[in-house]
Amino acid sequence: MGALAGIRVVDLTRILAGPFCTQLLADMGAEVIKVEPPTGDPVRGQGAVVDGFSWYFAQFNRNKKSVVLDLYTDEGKDALARLIASADVLVENYRPGVLAKMGFDDGRLEELNPRLITASVNGYGSTGPYVDRPAFDFIAQAMSGFMAVNGDPDGPPRRAAPPVSDLIAGLYCAFGVTSALEARHRSGRGQKVESSLTGGLISMMAYLSAEYFATGSNPKRTGNDHPIVAPYGLFEAEDGEIAVAPSHDVMVARFLGVLGLSDLLNEPDFADNARRMANRPALNARINAVTRTRPVDHWIEAINKAGCPAGRVMALDEVFTDPQVLAQEMVVESQRPGRAPIRMTGFPVKLSATPCTVQLPPPELGEHTDEVLGGL
Amino acid sequence: MGALAGIRVVDLTRILAGPFCTQLLADMGAEVIKVEPPTGDPVRGQGAVVDGFSWYFAQFNRNKKSVVLDLYTDEGKDALARLIASADVLVENYRPGVLAKMGFDDGRLEELNPRLITASVNGYGSTGPYVDRPAFDFIAQAMSGFMAVNGDPDGPPRRAAPPVSDLIAGLYCAFGVTSALEARHRSGRGQKVESSLTGGLISMMAYLSAEYFATGSNPKRTGNDHPIVAPYGLFEAEDGEIAVAPSHDVMVARFLGVLGLSDLLNEPDFADNARRMANRPALNARINAVTRTRPVDHWIEAINKAGCPAGRVMALDEVFTDPQVLAQEMVVESQRPGRAPIRMTGFPVKLSATPCTVQLPPPELGEHTDEVLGGL
Repeated sequence: MGALAGIRVVDLTRILAGPFCTQLLADMGAEVIKVEPPTGDPVRGQGAVVDGFSWYFAQFNRNKKSVVLDLYTDEGKDALARLIASADVLVENYRPGVLAKMGFDDGRLEELNPRLITASVNGYGSTGPYVDRPAFDFIAQAMSGFMAVNGDPDGPPRRAAPPVSDLIAGLYCAFGVTSALEARHRSGRGQKVESSLTGGLISMMAYLSAEYFATGSNPKRTGNDHPIVAPYGLFEAEDGEIAVAPSHDVMVARFLGVLGLSDLLNEPDFADNARRMANRPALNARINAVTRTRPVDHWIEAINKAGCPAGRVMALDEVFTDPQVLAQEMVVESQRPGRAPIRMTGFPVKLSATPCTVQLPPPELGEHTDEVLGGL
Repeated sequence: MGALAGIRVVDLTRILAGPFCTQLLADMGAEVIKVEPPTGDPVRGQGAVVDGFSWYFAQFNRNKKSVVLDLYTDEGKDALARLIASADVLVENYRPGVLAKMGFDDGRLEELNPRLITASVNGYGSTGPYVDRPAFDFIAQAMSGFMAVNGDPDGPPRRAAPPVSDLIAGLYCAFGVTSALEARHRSGRGQKVESSLTGGLISMMAYLSAEYFATGSNPKRTGNDHPIVAPYGLFEAEDGEIAVAPSHDVMVARFLGVLGLSDLLNEPDFADNARRMANRPALNARINAVTRTRPVDHWIEAINKAGCPAGRVMALDEVFTDPQVLAQEMVVESQRPGRAPIRMTGFPVKLSATPCTVQLPPPELGEHTDEVLGGL
């Protein structure tokens, strides 16, 4: 039994941000009923397909039930109304206003179910001048300030490859829904919850935005270098790169100590952080001359042991075979009869008494239509 | 009254990931009691200081109360025990095992308060071979597969500048805490909640990890280009860059139509996505020749109007003066008597009936020690 056992979620979302939100709720034990059009969520046909099943779809839709409704018909809308009346939560990621145009405006939802929590994940929020614009992760990365701070000082702004704005917005929405559940225990009533791709990513700017607010200056792109600390970044080992993050002087001393370079701190060019920043290329050259003599594993072990954070730059094949990642069960499998076991990312939040589990495999299109509609 | 009104959180966190978790809970209306050592959270002295106050600290500690306890003394530990007995949630971001060494192991916590939810944000999780390693955002970006997919095809792996792994881990932990609150309504008992910098960021790999699982191949770095769609990315307008994301053929036709380049799709080099991918430099040159003739504003307006996602690449000064960002109240102010108003990022998740609000300014060190301890 998961933490959200007994909570029924009607899921009108597709593609990415919304389905990630509802998967987080499903992983926590909520009953998530994914309402799909007769053609299905487009993701069913995207990405690599194994044994007739998209693993991209699987990654975002495990633990859900699939019900097919044609919401262009009165019959479909009627079934949706009955589903809504039976539910605790409705999640949608239409553009703002579309759900109302389908016949489910705030008044109707309130009438159908005053305890309903209605959650929306969208691009820019449901009010304001950009409300009707189509949204996409790449655009949210551009418009949130995120792209502008990533990349080389003399290069262009750089996106992150994963669709971080979609997933962060989905995660915020799931947090909003569970917070609204807590409020409902007091009030007895539902409310509206909303998150957006741009708003979520803006909130990740952290001290970069705090510094902008305090100083009025935009942060500069610094590549992999720390903007105000040296040494810091990627260094060359015998057989690859190591990431080292000595965030203050004590850490720097530990790092250089492991390399046998403690004396560097007595040289005028490297005596304090300001001078190390000014002489970063020379400093990094001295460090690389030592790190290049031994393999990655040696340095990772020794630098961490000295109390300074260090790690390997891992590609996904290394990530998903790493002993720590496996110990944390960040790879899970889901089995569908007659198909190859589907491998997917595990659960990033762990609860001891009501852990997240794979209860249901990702559903075939409409697999639960009869079961769910028959139960209304 | 926020969604989490009436929930008391004892906050033993410092720096970033933990304080972000407890700020999310505080923004939602929980009473968050930040327990600080006599020297305070180190962030109080970091970043730009305005009128004697760090705006970086403010960004992560609004809506909290500050209580100073010296947890090296029996008196401090005794006060913490009484606080724990009065609380719903304890959040800490020590390395695994440190809280137990301080005298608060699982048995003691259970004895003090069987309804307590104990949440931990850490680097790698609380079990596994790397459990004792020091953690840092840069290292988590390296070890999660995130850095390896970001950057140019012929360049090095690239971090994202914001500390995304810290903030995502904090957000997952807040979601775990609210989920555990829901479970407690059924069970009457607390439990342990945990998230990690690496686990959180691994979960953001989305379809990149799904493709790896399905194919066994690592994704390649593709800079700002979409790995399987062209045209897509940044284009040159008269006075700056525009981000355009036509994610499928219909969008591509809309985008090229706005540019007056619909005929491109009839040329053999650009007739389908595979050929456009193969001839991307030539395609982008043709597009840039047109986009360079008009300003950014013109193109953003026209391309969005045609239904294709497009946006400006914004630095933070543009983000925080953008009319949509202001309409979404993503800049808020907090006032402390005798100090300049502190500007900070607003609330990325909106609740209609119990909205997030700035109830308390970021606290002075120990500001609430007497009030809170006196009330026990």
